[in-house]
Amino acid sequence: MPLLLEPVLAHLDANRAPAIERWKELLRIPSIGTDPTRNADTRRAAEWLVSNLRSIGFDTSLRETAGQPMVVGHHPGPDGAAGPHVLYYGHYDVQPVEPLELWLSPPFEPTMVTTERGPRLVARGAVDDKGQVMTWLEALRAWHEVHGNLPVRVSVFLEGEEESGSPSLVPFLEANRDELRADVCVVSDTGMWDIDTPAIATMLRGLVYVELTLSGPARDLHSGMYGGAVPNPLNVLTRVLGQLHDGEGRVRIPGFYDQVRELEEARQWAALPFDEAAFLAGAGIKVPQGEAGRSTLERTWSRPTCDINGIWGGYTGPGSKTVIPAKASAKLSCRLVPDQDPERILAGLREFLKARTPAECHWEIATHGLSPAIRLPADSPYLEAAKRALEAVFDRPPLMIGMGGSIPAVEAIKRLLGMDSLLVGFGLEDDLVHSPNEKFEVRCFEAGMRTHTRLLAELAKLG
Amino acid sequence: MPLLLEPVLAHLDANRAPAIERWKELLRIPSIGTDPTRNADTRRAAEWLVSNLRSIGFDTSLRETAGQPMVVGHHPGPDGAAGPHVLYYGHYDVQPVEPLELWLSPPFEPTMVTTERGPRLVARGAVDDKGQVMTWLEALRAWHEVHGNLPVRVSVFLEGEEESGSPSLVPFLEANRDELRADVCVVSDTGMWDIDTPAIATMLRGLVYVELTLSGPARDLHSGMYGGAVPNPLNVLTRVLGQLHDGEGRVRIPGFYDQVRELEEARQWAALPFDEAAFLAGAGIKVPQGEAGRSTLERTWSRPTCDINGIWGGYTGPGSKTVIPAKASAKLSCRLVPDQDPERILAGLREFLKARTPAECHWEIATHGLSPAIRLPADSPYLEAAKRALEAVFDRPPLMIGMGGSIPAVEAIKRLLGMDSLLVGFGLEDDLVHSPNEKFEVRCFEAGMRTHTRLLAELAKLG
Repeated sequence: MPLLLEPVLAHLDANRAPAIERWKELLRIPSIGTDPTRNADTRRAAEWLVSNLRSIGFDTSLRETAGQPMVVGHHPGPDGAAGPHVLYYGHYDVQPVEPLELWLSPPFEPTMVTTERGPRLVARGAVDDKGQVMTWLEALRAWHEVHGNLPVRVSVFLEGEEESGSPSLVPFLEANRDELRADVCVVSDTGMWDIDTPAIATMLRGLVYVELTLSGPARDLHSGMYGGAVPNPLNVLTRVLGQLHDGEGRVRIPGFYDQVRELEEARQWAALPFDEAAFLAGAGIKVPQGEAGRSTLERTWSRPTCDINGIWGGYTGPGSKTVIPAKASAKLSCRLVPDQDPERILAGLREFLKARTPAECHWEIATHGLSPAIRLPADSPYLEAAKRALEAVFDRPPLMIGMGGSIPAVEAIKRLLGMDSLLVGFGLEDDLVHSPNEKFEVRCFEAGMRTHTRLLAELAKLG
Repeated sequence: MPLLLEPVLAHLDANRAPAIERWKELLRIPSIGTDPTRNADTRRAAEWLVSNLRSIGFDTSLRETAGQPMVVGHHPGPDGAAGPHVLYYGHYDVQPVEPLELWLSPPFEPTMVTTERGPRLVARGAVDDKGQVMTWLEALRAWHEVHGNLPVRVSVFLEGEEESGSPSLVPFLEANRDELRADVCVVSDTGMWDIDTPAIATMLRGLVYVELTLSGPARDLHSGMYGGAVPNPLNVLTRVLGQLHDGEGRVRIPGFYDQVRELEEARQWAALPFDEAAFLAGAGIKVPQGEAGRSTLERTWSRPTCDINGIWGGYTGPGSKTVIPAKASAKLSCRLVPDQDPERILAGLREFLKARTPAECHWEIATHGLSPAIRLPADSPYLEAAKRALEAVFDRPPLMIGMGGSIPAVEAIKRLLGMDSLLVGFGLEDDLVHSPNEKFEVRCFEAGMRTHTRLLAELAKLG
């Protein structure tokens, strides 16, 4: 006889305050996984999750990698559970907080702010991904606290390198295939359509992220003495990277569009009630820009892009210094769409750079992430279960959407473990993900907990 | 009856060690004038000079400005001196020291290193301009210590903002014209032809130095969410600045070459025994590059240039961050040749930027320096005096050369006080000016002291 859902929902309602306290506790740990000086804090976040999972009956371990540790937990569920074995994936690392001066409250002191929408929690990681992880951890906790058990067999897998390209993820999945393989993966790291309308993402762009260092003169030079007679790496860097797009906003990396197809989903998205003006207003932008002849949804969901994410070189302090520096650097990433091969794009980028490099300059290229785009099957019993859970909570059916961002784990889990992922997330476009003053609406957080609570019951029914 | 020269030269020889100690004392003061956190140190360098000048009979004062203080001193010379009134100009500020990790010894702990050329002193400012200033301060000291007087009337004027575009210089000269006007200005902030061959610079390039800030989105954005649909200031910055040069290495700022003429001096320079390979080797470069159809000497002395001196924006820490930043910045400078008007070049740059800026992006332009190039008269009794002094010390006549760098003071002194400057300097091309491990050969330092000692005697003869 299945465990009853209703008392679990009631328990959730009665225990909102401690759930929010646990969420805050996790947010207070500054687990900036990409920053080596934060390694101890990042590990502390992993340890906090181990302890949290153990307290709700999971057989949990902290697993070392070459980078940040993984957290793995297993709960057998009820004896002879007929439902699927579910793997929850999430990440406990957060983005760096710079520029710090733009935060209205300290990024690692979670601050409750009340707006006309109700309360929201402001902190780095409030939504991405600590807040979203807590929505399903609290659902698991509620089932455990009410029934002493879960309605299905559950494994949990959390990494600490998602914001830095997940370098340890693939080796770890390869080394632990049997332990981590389940029937379906559930991920909450995506967004809703709007605060009233849930969404399930069925397409995610991939990512090629590189760091480029261009070397020229053997040392920093005085521009008065050498200016005009030697290659200036800053001039060369801008000249070369300034050619990445043509006048139509298309990327000029050789072969960049060779694998890009017009997608069925893109036609469906044309019917979505997308408020382009509101979306762009979130970035302070009025005039849509980008690849010519494409809608904003296509530009962000189904078309590949290339963006410089960081650039530095020469003198950047106050005042002036007339230097020609020996080196100049940039971080650059391409968002990929289905069928683009990250290795081919990387090779094309190398070719692009090489063809434009003057004598006596050379590039070093370090890779911080290589993952293809993924498409999820548009119909499956798991997807139907998720739709039912969302509809029960929100009183309207979820929209099927694309996503501009990348979740390398979803691709790796598909490729290495053969599992599809349900991308059921509760973020909003204005959550300021990766920006100062990141927040998560408490209303979304609570809807997330209720959805995951119901999803577990729906999955149990699949038998 | 004139003061005798020979005992002063003998005194100089007998007192090398204390002269070097005073030079080191000044170098130990980290007077990075462009860095506000170093303001107290910068002032300390000015105070040290005030005290030094007072100890050799100068009526000296520290003079406040909106920026770093000026040092002004006056010495009447002998009663009824018939020679010219000489103004010595120099600067006591030094360049920033970054990248600090490339220094082999701490930049503000002057370190004597012996090579096959003999000893050299390594420190920030060793040559530019503290070391060069000490060559004439020590010459003045030697005259004072031997004769209790100087052979001519002398004023001294030192600023602390030369490395940051001399913003206070013009207001100060305007406010103190009568006090500072003399017959000729002497400046040691230039170089020799080589270690055996002295040189006098008769042409200096001017400078337009700006800091550009490009704003786009209202806040930092996640490139997954917005990438491809909004203007990325880093993409735009590289696209616009990457167009500053055409395929022939010519600057594409509108009107940039309108005032540029072919110069008589450039024809003379073609006869100089210039070792292009050795010059470029100093920068680790083998293949000459730059404006097509021009020699390396033309490119660095008589042709205008445009160089990016610094660039920054987005995420520049370790690892990766998929950000589209709200802003991107660069520092950019143009070296100007005679007849180019800095204001017109600045207006052309604004036009260049404006014509290439997409919707919803805008530039802020801050100016850190605007000075035209200058040409010194090729014949004058002062120049002849300097030639005789140099020939007596080096046993060969000096070469008349151009200089790629700018000394805004020389232009301002000409324009506001109506005085020409004698540019008699003792630096070498490999002195690593503005770079880590800046040095000054002791041999050059000592030749400088002897030259200035003799120059004072030669000027006194002019009657």
